[in-house]
Amino acid sequence: MNGHDSIRAVAWRDNHLELLDQRKLPQAETYVQFYAVEEVADAIRKMVVRGAPAIGITAAYGLVLAARRGFKQYPQDWRRRLMPDVELLARARPTAVNLRWALQRMTRALDRIPDEDDPVARLLELAHRIHEEDIAANHIMGGLGSALIPAGQSVITHCNTGSLATGGYGTALGVIRSACAEGRIEQVYADETRPWWQGSRLTAWELMRDQIPVSLICDGAAAHLMKQQRISWAIVGADRIAANGDVANKIGTYGLAVNARFHGVRFMVVAPTSTIDLDTAAGDAIPVEERAADEILSCVGQRLAPPHAQAWNPAFDITPARLVDALVTERGVVMRPDRDRISALMAGPVPG
Amino acid sequence: MNGHDSIRAVAWRDNHLELLDQRKLPQAETYVQFYAVEEVADAIRKMVVRGAPAIGITAAYGLVLAARRGFKQYPQDWRRRLMPDVELLARARPTAVNLRWALQRMTRALDRIPDEDDPVARLLELAHRIHEEDIAANHIMGGLGSALIPAGQSVITHCNTGSLATGGYGTALGVIRSACAEGRIEQVYADETRPWWQGSRLTAWELMRDQIPVSLICDGAAAHLMKQQRISWAIVGADRIAANGDVANKIGTYGLAVNARFHGVRFMVVAPTSTIDLDTAAGDAIPVEERAADEILSCVGQRLAPPHAQAWNPAFDITPARLVDALVTERGVVMRPDRDRISALMAGPVPG
Repeated sequence: MNGHDSIRAVAWRDNHLELLDQRKLPQAETYVQFYAVEEVADAIRKMVVRGAPAIGITAAYGLVLAARRGFKQYPQDWRRRLMPDVELLARARPTAVNLRWALQRMTRALDRIPDEDDPVARLLELAHRIHEEDIAANHIMGGLGSALIPAGQSVITHCNTGSLATGGYGTALGVIRSACAEGRIEQVYADETRPWWQGSRLTAWELMRDQIPVSLICDGAAAHLMKQQRISWAIVGADRIAANGDVANKIGTYGLAVNARFHGVRFMVVAPTSTIDLDTAAGDAIPVEERAADEILSCVGQRLAPPHAQAWNPAFDITPARLVDALVTERGVVMRPDRDRISALMAGPVPG
Repeated sequence: MNGHDSIRAVAWRDNHLELLDQRKLPQAETYVQFYAVEEVADAIRKMVVRGAPAIGITAAYGLVLAARRGFKQYPQDWRRRLMPDVELLARARPTAVNLRWALQRMTRALDRIPDEDDPVARLLELAHRIHEEDIAANHIMGGLGSALIPAGQSVITHCNTGSLATGGYGTALGVIRSACAEGRIEQVYADETRPWWQGSRLTAWELMRDQIPVSLICDGAAAHLMKQQRISWAIVGADRIAANGDVANKIGTYGLAVNARFHGVRFMVVAPTSTIDLDTAAGDAIPVEERAADEILSCVGQRLAPPHAQAWNPAFDITPARLVDALVTERGVVMRPDRDRISALMAGPVPG
């Protein structure tokens, strides 16, 4: 790891999964150990771990834990007994497609394991491979995205898309890490990212830890920033990308994209191809998770709004492909993504 | 007051000024008494009272307190002694022009009071008049703005522009009050309005108190809302309007206006003509207050961001006139405001 890459949030330790509890950052750097699949699904749901690639990797390791228990309890019947666990993990969060993608890879591998064999070693090997491929993809995307950034300007990002959101290095923050290593970025502005504060709590922590200059702004200040400062790119990740290039990402991304277009700031989406869902034709078919109103009505456990106040809390929004200037994947960059260009990307060669 | 108008945040009580402490809402409804001008300036600076019209009215009452002490201490020389107090109030917050406007009205009245007279009664009478005119203006604007709203749709608002931000009834919330009384509005969506939570804490409290249906959203969710729901208008107030129609208002307003235009949602600014500053040619000449980074880095006294994190906290932004569909004032509605139309409005007849 170079100087701009010192953090790992998901790790397999000997016989268990370990997650950095992202709900407690930056106040406490707490690592939690997981031995049972139910706890892993719960950790995804409760956002101990979050970020589309990170929850995919976590689910893969979670299935290893499930298989270990399944094979021990039902050595003759472990395959059938494992299916509810796959379902449990798949349902933990609805929007990110990497979760389903990782579980599909794992279940395809399961299908090739004979009934009488212990599946654990092979599943663990695949989970490790998914994890390592994610980090490798992030480094490739980091270089590809960085090459698009002119030196000496600032960038803005939304949510957290870094080592905390992926296997390591990050998607949008991976591009920012690479661009900083190459001396291209003067200043990173990070939206605080309400309601879960991924910017204030996670992106600020992660970038400061890796000596990257970051300044937080309120989500509502992005337009004013774009008018005042030399912002060359807005750089974000994605939870799911439809076949036509529409992008589901953290709530606030879409409004940022509209403002970027209005101000002539270019808009970059950085995501591995595991985020692209060819089965979803367009963004309006992507399910958008709505989370509890209390995430808006309270803050750090203290009530902000009056008793009985109502709130609407969609966790994601959909940015139409026409607002995306560059989609950066590990298979290459798609400028002005649309159905044909994404189809060509996905039909093309896989690196490595 | 009708059923949709039950709150007053600024009041002269017998021999002192009383303010509803807006920092403590909605948890506590605390009224604070003021007897000295320094405390009033401090209350404006610390946002015990906020909202452009409300701080103008508060400053007028503050000057009454200053005059009472000045005349008592220096009966021969009270006028000269009062000037530092005027300055103190004027400097309390830089962006809203109503503060300066109210103080100019008060000092012009001062100039007409003979040296040997006690100025207090006449100044108090004028402060009351400024207060009453503000409420009357809000009712006029409420009717004018409401007439622009088609029945059966929803509206979105930003910050707090209601009874809490004015002498009473409100500017943008005055329009919403009137439109609700006329049955035109299905649902009000209120941005939570980071970093000071005027939406979550004040607008929600005020509208719920007056039985107006309100749902809170994160500032970053407004674009998604505009795409999903039938929003007819975004309705906001103003802290200062330049001669060309550019609008300074709470940070987040400008990005909301950009998104409104993108989605075909119309954008209404509601402000008394005391908010229009003909001495400021265009928005880029309006001073934008930058407040402490801690408003972003912490929440309800608890630190969110890592130690030593940086933040940029402009309290206002500038919405260019071309994004404003309607400017509603007590002298009339200006559609698509520009320099000529605003000049004509200000040269026209004053109601009442």
